[in-house]
Amino acid sequence: MRVIITVMPKPGVLDPQGRAIARALGGLGFEGVGEVRAGKVFELDLAETDRERAQAAAEEMGRRLLANTVVESFRVAVLG
Amino acid sequence: MRVIITVMPKPGVLDPQGRAIARALGGLGFEGVGEVRAGKVFELDLAETDRERAQAAAEEMGRRLLANTVVESFRVAVLG
Repeated sequence: MRVIITVMPKPGVLDPQGRAIARALGGLGFEGVGEVRAGKVFELDLAETDRERAQAAAEEMGRRLLANTVVESFRVAVLG
Repeated sequence: MRVIITVMPKPGVLDPQGRAIARALGGLGFEGVGEVRAGKVFELDLAETDRERAQAAAEEMGRRLLANTVVESFRVAVLG
């Protein structure tokens, strides 16, 4: 199954990349840009064919490798 | 409106970060991990209230700043 793991800075955690992008968009002439948050996304092909087991495996991957859960949260989507 | 812009390496473009993650997951004992692609995701709050204009603005932001369209593709989701 294909799973997507999205990792974002937690609310309240400073996101210098997002701030830099907001400023850069303003500099390019884009108006009305408020907060920008920058995160990472991982698309994985898993041999697992059971939807719930794929979800559980992806959540463990997020916790153990892909997210720093002190400052980042993550969400998992199983595409099937 | 809130928009999400997801930037991924184009198919066929080498993705060393994705490969390193696939190897690391194997090393952690995860089995059946096939291809992993690593990308970036940006969540933006826009003052724009028209859905189509928000979509168009986000697509222009992707082209002009957030994606390197030589080697990356991007997609836009308007959350409203």
